Amino acid sequence: MSENHVLRVECADAKGLIHKITGVLYRQGLNIIENGEFVDSEIGRFFMRTEVAGKADAKKITAELQKHLPPEAIVGMVRDRKKDIVLFATTEPHCLGDLLIRHAYGELPANVLAVVSNHDSLKSLAGRFKVPYFYAPADGKAREAHEAALLKILSRLKPEYIVLAKYMRILSDKFVGRFKGRILNIHHSFLPAFAGASPYQQAAERGVKIIGATAHFVTPALDDGPIIAQGVVPVDHSHSASDIAQAGHDVEKIVLTKALKLALEGRIFVSGNKTIIFD
Amino acid sequence: MSENHVLRVECADAKGLIHKITGVLYRQGLNIIENGEFVDSEIGRFFMRTEVAGKADAKKITAELQKHLPPEAIVGMVRDRKKDIVLFATTEPHCLGDLLIRHAYGELPANVLAVVSNHDSLKSLAGRFKVPYFYAPADGKAREAHEAALLKILSRLKPEYIVLAKYMRILSDKFVGRFKGRILNIHHSFLPAFAGASPYQQAAERGVKIIGATAHFVTPALDDGPIIAQGVVPVDHSHSASDIAQAGHDVEKIVLTKALKLALEGRIFVSGNKTIIFD
Amino acid sequence: MSENHVLRVECADAKGLIHKITGVLYRQGLNIIENGEFVDSEIGRFFMRTEVAGKADAKKITAELQKHLPPEAIVGMVRDRKKDIVLFATTEPHCLGDLLIRHAYGELPANVLAVVSNHDSLKSLAGRFKVPYFYAPADGKAREAHEAALLKILSRLKPEYIVLAKYMRILSDKFVGRFKGRILNIHHSFLPAFAGASPYQQAAERGVKIIGATAHFVTPALDDGPIIAQGVVPVDHSHSASDIAQAGHDVEKIVLTKALKLALEGRIFVSGNKTIIFD
Amino acid sequence: MSENHVLRVECADAKGLIHKITGVLYRQGLNIIENGEFVDSEIGRFFMRTEVAGKADAKKITAELQKHLPPEAIVGMVRDRKKDIVLFATTEPHCLGDLLIRHAYGELPANVLAVVSNHDSLKSLAGRFKVPYFYAPADGKAREAHEAALLKILSRLKPEYIVLAKYMRILSDKFVGRFKGRILNIHHSFLPAFAGASPYQQAAERGVKIIGATAHFVTPALDDGPIIAQGVVPVDHSHSASDIAQAGHDVEKIVLTKALKLALEGRIFVSGNKTIIFD
Repeated sequence: MSENHVLRVECADAKGLIHKITGVLYRQGLNIIENGEFVDSEIGRFFMRTEVAGKADAKKITAELQKHLPPEAIVGMVRDRKKDIVLFATTEPHCLGDLLIRHAYGELPANVLAVVSNHDSLKSLAGRFKVPYFYAPADGKAREAHEAALLKILSRLKPEYIVLAKYMRILSDKFVGRFKGRILNIHHSFLPAFAGASPYQQAAERGVKIIGATAHFVTPALDDGPIIAQGVVPVDHSHSASDIAQAGHDVEKIVLTKALKLALEGRIFVSGNKTIIFD
Repeated sequence: MSENHVLRVECADAKGLIHKITGVLYRQGLNIIENGEFVDSEIGRFFMRTEVAGKADAKKITAELQKHLPPEAIVGMVRDRKKDIVLFATTEPHCLGDLLIRHAYGELPANVLAVVSNHDSLKSLAGRFKVPYFYAPADGKAREAHEAALLKILSRLKPEYIVLAKYMRILSDKFVGRFKGRILNIHHSFLPAFAGASPYQQAAERGVKIIGATAHFVTPALDDGPIIAQGVVPVDHSHSASDIAQAGHDVEKIVLTKALKLALEGRIFVSGNKTIIFD
Repeated sequence: MSENHVLRVECADAKGLIHKITGVLYRQGLNIIENGEFVDSEIGRFFMRTEVAGKADAKKITAELQKHLPPEAIVGMVRDRKKDIVLFATTEPHCLGDLLIRHAYGELPANVLAVVSNHDSLKSLAGRFKVPYFYAPADGKAREAHEAALLKILSRLKPEYIVLAKYMRILSDKFVGRFKGRILNIHHSFLPAFAGASPYQQAAERGVKIIGATAHFVTPALDDGPIIAQGVVPVDHSHSASDIAQAGHDVEKIVLTKALKLALEGRIFVSGNKTIIFD
Repeated sequence: MSENHVLRVECADAKGLIHKITGVLYRQGLNIIENGEFVDSEIGRFFMRTEVAGKADAKKITAELQKHLPPEAIVGMVRDRKKDIVLFATTEPHCLGDLLIRHAYGELPANVLAVVSNHDSLKSLAGRFKVPYFYAPADGKAREAHEAALLKILSRLKPEYIVLAKYMRILSDKFVGRFKGRILNIHHSFLPAFAGASPYQQAAERGVKIIGATAHFVTPALDDGPIIAQGVVPVDHSHSASDIAQAGHDVEKIVLTKALKLALEGRIFVSGNKTIIFD
């Protein structure tokens, strides 16, 4: 693991921000190895992500930056290291399996602390990779009781991110609110969009020529939170609903991994209901 | 232009259909150079498109086929030749221009009879390609009166297909019903979908990562008819609404041309609200 | 597993072939559920793949078909069932892992009999999925001796297909000749192409904007055999050689699975050095 | 046209570069509206493109910047305005037509000064858009004589960029050397690559599943200069060489326009034989 640090700043746009921020880094003798800034001109807001090499006193630098930036500025600096994550799943193995195998072979900058599921059918999959599996049944339980069980597990594990790898239950606003900007979800996406059950069946009946997947942050009071990544695959009339589902699963797992890596590397800012990503 | 013929058959599925149909062609001494069949097993319906080389008496073959097929069978056989089309547009030049330039250089198996528009701003574009331009203003007119003007133009031109190349008015069910399966439209498509005005502005604000275009047949009493072709392009937060519109225009023109060629070559069947395409 | 059968025919093109072939099936009372034919007009050769439902006496039908077809015709009919395959790998886990996990969850119409490798580093990966692992070291051995060891393993396992899931050794013409049309390989592909070592490093230095993967049959005396499937992903200057390799691995595993499924379902014909695929 | 300016800097990497550069802009009261930097760590080189709003004295700022940067630094600042370009073509209309129509409708930040061709067949196409056409025949001429004619035309027109829109002649190193980094070319690209004549025929015979196009800068003594943009489309065995050529043309025109816009907006740096693009 490198000695690199990632600095993230967001504040109202103003002249001289980059100059001031890079001045603090320069005076600390740090070398910028990757830098991205963006001004959302619609709302006049400035976003910056900077990766620096060299020994850095993050606390001191953050304090110094706050002196040069407006009081409302959000400043964060962390060492570039593996993040602790928990994977939520229900019964579908494709996303969970892909994440576990990438994790096992060092492809993810993450420690997978555990798999949490409302079913026990994926226990053997987690077991293959020696990852702890918490079975928190939801059937016949009130949502509050189920989420209390989840929270108990999470309070012990203290993950930095929760990844809904085809977790097929809706989380309450209260639950979501406790992990603001830290829960990622993946869902299938179609042109046109379909509501309700059996979306792949509907897609087959509607004869769509492209299907896709969208990874997004989960937010309360919103169907879909800020979009992180999207992908598509072509399909045609010869594909059954089950063929389409299979193609959809492949794109889901690629898109979820892509989004998760962006989150783990601190590359995503949320501005209103959209993301700004320094890739 | 070739001496090829395209035979199209659709009927309830049954054993032996391909054998019977190809038997008729074989006894006529015709060589099959391209063949596609599909059974929509959900509804038990058979579709077949066959391209044959050699001199063929289409009328006789059609009559012969009907003897071997159930009475409800829809059988058509036409010589492979350029089709007559009319292009409808409003003010955006990207789709119209692309079609006109392809037409001018022989890329489309079509004769563009005319451009029809509710504005006069694209008259010079049609003029560059020496294609007649009919200006049928709609402002301040009742829809019936406007459509009556359109119908008058069309009744003289007798096009086989009408291509809505960014024609920004909704056609009445009555109008659409007169050209069943013969009007193609292109529209932008997003994940998620947006209703209402300024879709590109909405897409930018929502931070979508992919935008697309859908070409479809226009049908009465339906927002979107059977989908013929779809395409997408990636976008990101750095794209303004106008950048997204520009990217969208590029994919629109590619997708509309693709759909139009499929229609002109008789490759599309409509089954319920979906298309079956022998590409 | 279904009672379906897949019939495959290839022969010199002639009038009436489809009629004759479907006639045999019709007289046997079989229902065609999927059918594809193609005539490679450059060489005048006919290819047909037909999937039929219902109890079928494959031996009898094949014999009957041979009566109606020219003597050189290649006719095969097999019940649609899982095929036996062996996976070859070296040290990279991405393709092997993806195939093993898909196999474990029923996504592949195949029985993975074993993993064979010239290294022992992927033994634990095969072990997670309880698939036998044969370690056949190649270092310090003559190619003949190494391949003799491979052949000994294969003669016991009798796989229908061998999948080179990043097996990094070149197989001799003699070895390849024993499994004609039955060995699949995946390799990275670039625009422009790079020869020699460290292709990802070269791609990064050359600043390519797209990288890809090609799945193909392995043939003797040819660098690359007939291409089955290809895929690409965009990259840019900000991607290091290692980022490009990672993106390349993702596309490799998707493309290899796609190609393998096409082979397992009998959808691929080889004509000269190209494939004809009924997808 | 905006009052924006684009500043471009490249030099050996060192600590504090961004701070110093943005300091000069800040002291001039300029607001940064878009900024991109990249360090090519392999060769220790720094690249930065900054777009600023507000009245700027480019000469003064450039001089000021040079005081703070190492003597070898390459610094340029220009007002964001339409660039003068000349289009070279031979006989294929697809790229030329697409550029002319985009130009006519304001999609390109460029003034197309003229079309130059070694054939006269595209004269009518340029004429449709009222763009001057220079016919400089090459047949039966020595390359020197032909290029002398081209240079005479160009010396009068003084274009900032030359776009080879399917110009099918090889330009001499001497010619290319006079327009370093200012000539863009588009060519078809395949996986695997094909040398020699009839590449689409070869692609069809080889059964490739993807074809593409590459836009690049033309450089002396190199087959292919730095790649700017690439695109691909899927094809299959049912596509004839002519179908593949048609699909290839569509991707060529999209990719060439994309590359040209990047060049016109000053978004491309060349580092060795690769490009760094701030998109």
